[in-house]
Amino acid sequence: MLFIAYQGEPGAFSELAARRFFGRTAKLVPMVHFDDVFRFTAKGGSKRGLIPIENSVFGSVHQNYDLLLDHKLSIIGEVTLRIHHHLMALPGVRMNHVKFVFSHPQALGQCEDFLRTLRSARQIPHYDTAGAAKMIKAEGRTNAAAVASVQASRTYRLNILRRNVESNHHNYTRFLVLARSGKFPERRAKTSLVFATKNVPGALFQALAVFALREVNLLKIESRPFVGKPWQYLFYLDVLGSPRNEKVRTALKHLEEVSTFTRILGAYPVGRTFQE
Amino acid sequence: MLFIAYQGEPGAFSELAARRFFGRTAKLVPMVHFDDVFRFTAKGGSKRGLIPIENSVFGSVHQNYDLLLDHKLSIIGEVTLRIHHHLMALPGVRMNHVKFVFSHPQALGQCEDFLRTLRSARQIPHYDTAGAAKMIKAEGRTNAAAVASVQASRTYRLNILRRNVESNHHNYTRFLVLARSGKFPERRAKTSLVFATKNVPGALFQALAVFALREVNLLKIESRPFVGKPWQYLFYLDVLGSPRNEKVRTALKHLEEVSTFTRILGAYPVGRTFQE
Repeated sequence: MLFIAYQGEPGAFSELAARRFFGRTAKLVPMVHFDDVFRFTAKGGSKRGLIPIENSVFGSVHQNYDLLLDHKLSIIGEVTLRIHHHLMALPGVRMNHVKFVFSHPQALGQCEDFLRTLRSARQIPHYDTAGAAKMIKAEGRTNAAAVASVQASRTYRLNILRRNVESNHHNYTRFLVLARSGKFPERRAKTSLVFATKNVPGALFQALAVFALREVNLLKIESRPFVGKPWQYLFYLDVLGSPRNEKVRTALKHLEEVSTFTRILGAYPVGRTFQE
Repeated sequence: MLFIAYQGEPGAFSELAARRFFGRTAKLVPMVHFDDVFRFTAKGGSKRGLIPIENSVFGSVHQNYDLLLDHKLSIIGEVTLRIHHHLMALPGVRMNHVKFVFSHPQALGQCEDFLRTLRSARQIPHYDTAGAAKMIKAEGRTNAAAVASVQASRTYRLNILRRNVESNHHNYTRFLVLARSGKFPERRAKTSLVFATKNVPGALFQALAVFALREVNLLKIESRPFVGKPWQYLFYLDVLGSPRNEKVRTALKHLEEVSTFTRILGAYPVGRTFQE
């Protein structure tokens, strides 16, 4: 049995992403915190872990960048999910019964244009989108609705009152798949790495030059504080190509010359995007 | 009277930073949300706004980067504060009476080594460090303590039970000062800007080259999602020097050639660091 750890309640977007990536037979194990996903996978409780790393509206999940550094797991894959939010309630509840709307504050924010049309309904923040759906089911709340995924509506048997209530329809979340070790693929790969620059002018430019001069494409850069060294930074890069590719390999070697620290977090096939 | 808007309760680190920057006579106006600080300052309710932008342990306050783009304010100054956390309680309360410790989750996290030594005390997250101190005072809780600033202990007349309980002593927060308009200083300046690159390989490298080739030092880079264009990014840069300086001015002109959008968020004197 393939055990996969993810963070959230059953019905969370992470569960949906894990299901898309691993298929029907994988056994998905919900965890409370992101940290738990890393720990549980590191000690072998699950074969794989899945974490969100970036949303196209809200940006990176910076905590997970920090956890990638703290733990020695490898990124072995990625998967992207189109985020649709739906308004859901117990069967029999109609739109005009809804006095309270529960969801994660980010999800409420993503649906504010629609929610503003529900004048008599108060928005109540909840720790999790699927958790809000679960609570409505568990407490039998007939005056409330949740904003959550279609998966959550199925898990907790809620009726969808209104579909796709998100304001911005270009809403995607990208997830990373983690394992204790990984092999670098030959082609159509991305490489994720982290490095620290020397504390000299032009250091970041020099570091990016090792890729640009070899025409290795930079897909993403994220900076995080170098804890203990105020105003120095760690840089996380995603570049196109595998370390098994000549250009990427020599670029990584060159990067070591101009940085004080380098680590490859993983190389993995460019992921698919699922529309729901 | 100089009115200054900041986010937080009286006694918050932002209040302390505003006091250091503006001196004793400024009238500080607390606001509930960061957004309020921008709005209130934009419409003239306050002459200046002050917001945290970066902590040396936790990283950037990404929401404030997004708000800098949404609003048309100018950055006209910066100030950095060493963050010290203290354990405080009502007068007469001793360490062994403390059953609950209230603070912002980040502050609790920053003090976890110390808090672990208080075995019988439960940690309770609160929305704000100074707010936790205020609540203990208002409710007369004699079995609880707060983790907050020295300013909060004075504002709410709490006794400090233990000073400097933070685990990492390299803990600094940098704040920006905002105004409706600003003049570029001549020297010892920083310039903050935001730009979007063309969606072509090597675009970020090209953009950084306009500074590196002129020996303009890059102090910080932050990437944020370009909302509506998944997996494209906005880049926020801090560079050393003023747009009134020849090299910076020509670099900014060159940047416009290689980007699809550029905005100067402000140029301001390099700020002081206050140890408490």
